[in-house]
Amino acid sequence: MHKNLIINFTPTGMIPTKKMTPYVPVSVDEIVEDVHAACEIGITMVHLHARDAISHVPSYKKEIYSDIILGIRKFAPKLVICVSLSGRDFSELEKRSDPLLLSDWAKPDMGSLTLSSLNFNKTASVNSPQMVMDLAKMMKDKGIIPELEVFDSGMINYAKYLEKKELLVAPHYFNILLGNIACAQPNLLHTGVLINDLPNDSLWSLAGIGNSQLMMNSIAIATGGGVRTGIEDNIWYDASRTKLAMNIDLIKRIHVIAKANERKVMLPSEFRKKMNLAPGDGQYGRKYTEST
Amino acid sequence: MHKNLIINFTPTGMIPTKKMTPYVPVSVDEIVEDVHAACEIGITMVHLHARDAISHVPSYKKEIYSDIILGIRKFAPKLVICVSLSGRDFSELEKRSDPLLLSDWAKPDMGSLTLSSLNFNKTASVNSPQMVMDLAKMMKDKGIIPELEVFDSGMINYAKYLEKKELLVAPHYFNILLGNIACAQPNLLHTGVLINDLPNDSLWSLAGIGNSQLMMNSIAIATGGGVRTGIEDNIWYDASRTKLAMNIDLIKRIHVIAKANERKVMLPSEFRKKMNLAPGDGQYGRKYTEST
Repeated sequence: MHKNLIINFTPTGMIPTKKMTPYVPVSVDEIVEDVHAACEIGITMVHLHARDAISHVPSYKKEIYSDIILGIRKFAPKLVICVSLSGRDFSELEKRSDPLLLSDWAKPDMGSLTLSSLNFNKTASVNSPQMVMDLAKMMKDKGIIPELEVFDSGMINYAKYLEKKELLVAPHYFNILLGNIACAQPNLLHTGVLINDLPNDSLWSLAGIGNSQLMMNSIAIATGGGVRTGIEDNIWYDASRTKLAMNIDLIKRIHVIAKANERKVMLPSEFRKKMNLAPGDGQYGRKYTEST
Repeated sequence: MHKNLIINFTPTGMIPTKKMTPYVPVSVDEIVEDVHAACEIGITMVHLHARDAISHVPSYKKEIYSDIILGIRKFAPKLVICVSLSGRDFSELEKRSDPLLLSDWAKPDMGSLTLSSLNFNKTASVNSPQMVMDLAKMMKDKGIIPELEVFDSGMINYAKYLEKKELLVAPHYFNILLGNIACAQPNLLHTGVLINDLPNDSLWSLAGIGNSQLMMNSIAIATGGGVRTGIEDNIWYDASRTKLAMNIDLIKRIHVIAKANERKVMLPSEFRKKMNLAPGDGQYGRKYTEST
């Protein structure tokens, strides 16, 4: 029997602007609306990036995350919600961890954790070992699960190290993103090596930058993995870049490919169970027991 | 017929201290002496790190590099010399590029170029895209060839990008270092993927951290690659870490394994020819022609 398909929906990201595409949701209402539409089609989880209401630039502020999360939970109280703790624009632990302070109905289930420093196209993304460990510890203490962001093979090794140091607790969820210029490339060899290295019983999704988003999503659907899809990593619908993507159309296409591959979308409740997350409906994050 | 074996000797590095091992050469005289002994056994090139004369901490200063280089060239005027441009301790372009200002008999043939940001055990090593491009351009302008330092698969992709941007000129020399905690691991799968990704006609060596230095060196000898060896990356001679390594013994062991594998050590003159370097004897670095 085929595993059910994790659809990790990433509506916004830190890079796309309204100038690049009118379809990127940036206000609280726009993001909530796109998540609503995606939920009606069927997704497992959402990976959120907040933007400042006036300037539209990325924001770390918990107040904005709170508005988005509460907006989503009005109609989808079980949807798994992951917030970004990216260091791309903010270097201080205090800022990066701000969304982890949310509680009750606004508490995120998960937070992104990039496992090393790397280079993006134009900038370095600095995640020092201390920063990674500090964020992991804060998340563990608060029962918020990391979405482990992997850009190249060494990052999986570092996740294993963090597990040994008891800063990560299995089971893990990995997002493997292929196609950054100075990271693993979107081909079968790199992707296969990364999947091969994952700890047993990990859940994982494949993501790709730009045109490779579709390729990586399709590979994942074919091979039993999950997908991360949305305008965060890719603003175009077609390979020839003539049509800008709407989030809803990216989700619909995933459903078409999934159906043809006999894969059903994993419900948030199944993901919650597999990852030892609270059931939703007012209870969020992971409950750690003494034995773990 | 087997390819001749590049032995890239790395006597010092940035990490080993006299406290860790009395055998690490740190003064100009000690470094020159270790290179002298290595040359008498047979090496192709040397990868140098300078240290401050009083504090013994890593130094970027061209004056110290000049003393080491002139000391070496008294007895080995053709040995290929690479200087470190590491950003591990110094972040400014001006400091990192200081050794590139040396000329005539003190001019290095090569300089190290780490192709992305990464994490070491305790610290982030930040090499922003702009920094990498600036160093590559300075080296190209001065006819100094990069030793392309690869820690994970994305870095080879970035080297290809730099070649497209005409900041790197083939043929290239890659040093592939396996075993950093947040980078590619010392196993055949990771190593095979990295070697498979190299541009055609590249020269390459394998290096490993700690105990994996010997494994990676042996794999390289067996498969037609070169080796980087020395106390820089590994202070122990044996796997059980009971015996501190002397540089000379590390080189001797490489010769034993190379001989048993029917591989002869590549002379500096052959490396110079393959890499379009000047012949030595007062002429150093690469002469670029219009057509390249």
